[in-house]
Amino acid sequence: MTYPLLDTISCPIDLRKVERKDLSQVAQDVRQFLLDSVSQTGGHFASNLGAVELTVALHYVFDTPHDRLVWDVGHQSYPHKILTGRKNRMTTMRKKGGLAGFPKRDESEFDTFGVGHSSTSIGAALGMAEAALLKGEKRKAIAVIGDGAMTAGQAIEALFNAGHRDLTDLLVILNDNEMSISPNVGAFNNYLAKLLSGKFYNGIRNASGKVLDVMPPLKELAKKGEESVKGFLTPGTLFEEIGFNYIGPIDGHDMETLVSTLSNIKELRGPQFLHVVTKKGNGYKLAVADPVKYHAVTPFVPEDGVCGSGKPSKPSFTQVFGDWLCDMAKADDKLVGITPAMREGSGMVRFHQEYPTRYFDVGIAEQHAVTFAGGLACEGLKPVVAIYSTFLQRAYDQLIHDVALQNLDVTFAIDRAGLVGADGPTHAGSFDLSFLRCIPNVAILAPGDENECRQMLYTAYEHKGPACVRYPRGSGMGVKVAEAMTLLPWGKGEIRRAATEQEGKKVAILAFGTVLEPALQAAAELNATVANMRFIKPIDTELVLQLAATHDLIVTVEDNAIMGGAGSAVIEAMMAAGVCKPVLQLGLPDSYVEHGEQKQILADCGLDAAGIKGSIQLRLQTI
Amino acid sequence: MTYPLLDTISCPIDLRKVERKDLSQVAQDVRQFLLDSVSQTGGHFASNLGAVELTVALHYVFDTPHDRLVWDVGHQSYPHKILTGRKNRMTTMRKKGGLAGFPKRDESEFDTFGVGHSSTSIGAALGMAEAALLKGEKRKAIAVIGDGAMTAGQAIEALFNAGHRDLTDLLVILNDNEMSISPNVGAFNNYLAKLLSGKFYNGIRNASGKVLDVMPPLKELAKKGEESVKGFLTPGTLFEEIGFNYIGPIDGHDMETLVSTLSNIKELRGPQFLHVVTKKGNGYKLAVADPVKYHAVTPFVPEDGVCGSGKPSKPSFTQVFGDWLCDMAKADDKLVGITPAMREGSGMVRFHQEYPTRYFDVGIAEQHAVTFAGGLACEGLKPVVAIYSTFLQRAYDQLIHDVALQNLDVTFAIDRAGLVGADGPTHAGSFDLSFLRCIPNVAILAPGDENECRQMLYTAYEHKGPACVRYPRGSGMGVKVAEAMTLLPWGKGEIRRAATEQEGKKVAILAFGTVLEPALQAAAELNATVANMRFIKPIDTELVLQLAATHDLIVTVEDNAIMGGAGSAVIEAMMAAGVCKPVLQLGLPDSYVEHGEQKQILADCGLDAAGIKGSIQLRLQTI
Repeated sequence: MTYPLLDTISCPIDLRKVERKDLSQVAQDVRQFLLDSVSQTGGHFASNLGAVELTVALHYVFDTPHDRLVWDVGHQSYPHKILTGRKNRMTTMRKKGGLAGFPKRDESEFDTFGVGHSSTSIGAALGMAEAALLKGEKRKAIAVIGDGAMTAGQAIEALFNAGHRDLTDLLVILNDNEMSISPNVGAFNNYLAKLLSGKFYNGIRNASGKVLDVMPPLKELAKKGEESVKGFLTPGTLFEEIGFNYIGPIDGHDMETLVSTLSNIKELRGPQFLHVVTKKGNGYKLAVADPVKYHAVTPFVPEDGVCGSGKPSKPSFTQVFGDWLCDMAKADDKLVGITPAMREGSGMVRFHQEYPTRYFDVGIAEQHAVTFAGGLACEGLKPVVAIYSTFLQRAYDQLIHDVALQNLDVTFAIDRAGLVGADGPTHAGSFDLSFLRCIPNVAILAPGDENECRQMLYTAYEHKGPACVRYPRGSGMGVKVAEAMTLLPWGKGEIRRAATEQEGKKVAILAFGTVLEPALQAAAELNATVANMRFIKPIDTELVLQLAATHDLIVTVEDNAIMGGAGSAVIEAMMAAGVCKPVLQLGLPDSYVEHGEQKQILADCGLDAAGIKGSIQLRLQTI
Repeated sequence: MTYPLLDTISCPIDLRKVERKDLSQVAQDVRQFLLDSVSQTGGHFASNLGAVELTVALHYVFDTPHDRLVWDVGHQSYPHKILTGRKNRMTTMRKKGGLAGFPKRDESEFDTFGVGHSSTSIGAALGMAEAALLKGEKRKAIAVIGDGAMTAGQAIEALFNAGHRDLTDLLVILNDNEMSISPNVGAFNNYLAKLLSGKFYNGIRNASGKVLDVMPPLKELAKKGEESVKGFLTPGTLFEEIGFNYIGPIDGHDMETLVSTLSNIKELRGPQFLHVVTKKGNGYKLAVADPVKYHAVTPFVPEDGVCGSGKPSKPSFTQVFGDWLCDMAKADDKLVGITPAMREGSGMVRFHQEYPTRYFDVGIAEQHAVTFAGGLACEGLKPVVAIYSTFLQRAYDQLIHDVALQNLDVTFAIDRAGLVGADGPTHAGSFDLSFLRCIPNVAILAPGDENECRQMLYTAYEHKGPACVRYPRGSGMGVKVAEAMTLLPWGKGEIRRAATEQEGKKVAILAFGTVLEPALQAAAELNATVANMRFIKPIDTELVLQLAATHDLIVTVEDNAIMGGAGSAVIEAMMAAGVCKPVLQLGLPDSYVEHGEQKQILADCGLDAAGIKGSIQLRLQTI
């Protein structure tokens, strides 16, 4: 394929040589390139299509990377990567050793701030703007943030902080497409919708200027109460109230408007707020029609679009959760389900449909999600909070202070635990066992397979007090999921394989979660005992001591950081009992694991059967 | 002392029998009782004085505890405790076994939600309101939140979520006293200040009604664009925009206004927002004059007020930090200091005075504080984030995702680590070593005394990458703090006491942080070796293995949860090296430690010299 103008552009300096009238053609090239590359590699799609013109205009008008451009979340940053020297590497997108799916500081000087989680851009850009001020450097710091990300508290904290810093050269661009991944919810988005409605914007705004001319008393009033009249004349009341100069809304696909507006803003000092309206998926009609489906895609033929959902034959843990949630809700009308804006990702679409009044999408607001669950639990309801491991990090204090300290009966269904693959380290759930384990009153369970996931969710739900079930991204092993729900013995693991009589050292592998499968494979070759531990907390001390007493080497396996994880629970229990035996702790290293195919990077960390076997053999040589 | 009307009231049912005209007298009695009791016990003061009338009015008008009353933070809840059956126990305030300084669910049915950290009340109350709706129960859920607490993202997340839940019976009361603990900062508070300015409120509001009558074209316009006119007529634009019915501002010390307004609101459905203006310290002029000083007090004579600051002869760790910060700032103009609304508590008053442009109070906004620091660090500045251990829990994801993942050079000065005493479990810093240790790239240091604190701050600051120094509340040991700053050997502990030749088992105590002092005392009696470990991460593996090789029992001591804490770092290091030796882990239990005198509760946890000695002796019997 050729891209007449884009082919001449390898970085923003080239872009700035293009004639202004030709920028739309550049955008068209970028969009075509995006379609051609993402349809080959898969990755985030609809949000990138929506940000093409804005990206071209930003790099055209501003002096990047001298001016600092911070993309919120970053799943709209592919056009940015295409225009900043990484066009030829787009085929490596999200592959091991290839481009990251998000901006990343060590990938390019144009990636000023690493992102992945939402709502960080304003705070980071404000830090950059304050630094410029202190250092006496003249540069703009620009945060581009979606309307979904704007509902998160962190973004508002940053807005509140920035709004009174009159000297900072900060530009916040609200990329308003009325959705994040799922359609957005909540009062803030209702507010934005009102801003965009013709009634409010076109009607009132145009009318009021005229009204002012013919009604002197009101004009007098206007001088007295400047703020209220501003609120009356412009739609951005809320942003103006907190100190920003609000500009917009403007059409985010109209290149000329974008370039001229940004050029004007470039000359303004102090906190600026530009409201840009875009359409997710713009320029590819299948994506416009179903932006949720096209949010992130697997490779597809551009002419045909993404075909079906291509459901794997083995259900994912997410699906197992979604089905359990509906079944449990049917059995217990006290159940309520909560998601921080992850209905699809957490498998709650059917629950939402079947139990709309018991379904709460609180927006991108993890902190609130957990405290809100606490409030519901105080009244005797039984909240289930579905949350990704990596996003639970955002609600850590709320879990400790609002739920666990009060021993409230909240169930946490923690998805995407362990390594997640293509999304990389920003989205990995590598720490939950460590950061949850120290919290009093909190139980932690990890299923070895998908049936156990269902039974554990049930067991955790029936347990009085906070209980977490953490399970990985992706498909299970294909184990049949029993419809009946059965309580698992609380705090008890099980022996899944007993080593037969042998010469040499006896090995017991204690597996936590879905690493059970490779552990069993390794054990078969090594004739080792394998325990499916099921509980990280309370740890099954009896089983640990029994295995320690009858084996020469204890091996713990988990897809969590070794530091402070499940293996440490095992050695703490042994030490407390005065039992000294060699323990080999296998798990994630004390470093960030880069993106790549999920299975591959697990293997790279030595958590496949071969890796587990190899580590054990090596360790056996030393005892 | 007698309190004519209060003496007849032991719970809200009694209060509701009082004649409405006498409520001001009740308030006067409560205020006097408050002064008499807090001057004896110490505790939070100014915020309680400011909330007296509001508390009386709320319990008078609403059917508590059937209606759910949630106090944000809770340091204004003493009048609430006085009126809800705990008057006679106010002398036990914050003492071991006595009343907690904050609302607490197991203390009273009137304490609907346990608090301590700010900005949780709206989310919790919304949960209660949604539960009432689902259960078909008619009750109001009421959140009382200060203007400081309202700047935190979590509160705004909850407002955004609540604002479109039209059927919920939620009342949010903004207790606006223009300060939290320190004077408030930021755009949101500027906004509130504008609301309260006569120009905006009195002028416009009264005038506009009249204007509407005489100007039909505008009235016409009003119908067309209802929202904008509402914003024009009432001051609460921001709250109205996100879906609340805004009422106020009203005088929070005018009992009749409070009672009549609340009575009206009681009949309204849907999310209501009442803006109440109070004065911190109201009714005790010394507190009004200096509400920061009277935020929390030690016992004092009411006639004289709090005398001096009664500075202890030994400087606190907080002071050591504050002095170091100024000295370091003098030596390096790249240093910037950040606090989430804790200038006084974190010892940053002098730094603020001396380096105003390099001082950033971002408001109660821990998440933003850390990401903002990340942005500054990207530009080559050297941010120092001063934060309490318990509040760092609020910025956990930001630390992982925005700072550590990018290996940005941010120093964290973590105050109030370990047990804090009178504030109790909501404020304890019991988990930081566990939740920090699993994060790659993060270094963790804990000083054994105040001089080491200074040197560690310097060492952490000079280290490239994120580094945390965690130190406890209160005074040091009286060790002289050297003015010179000296780098400590990175990742290295030191032997502080070598056991002399002896018969019997040899014991090595590995102390992390200020438990070094009792460890040394215990060791003197036991003839044990003592290592001051200094670093939790990177742990000094060499020293650990050396001690393990030369002793029969390793004892780790820390004022952090045993689970996943520093002791676990020690046993992980031993296991990784294939060293099996008995290890006794001493630290905080897997339960929440209740409030009480700091030294006392540390002793209760076995972390004084006697406790350490006793635990070791017990353990020695088993090996």
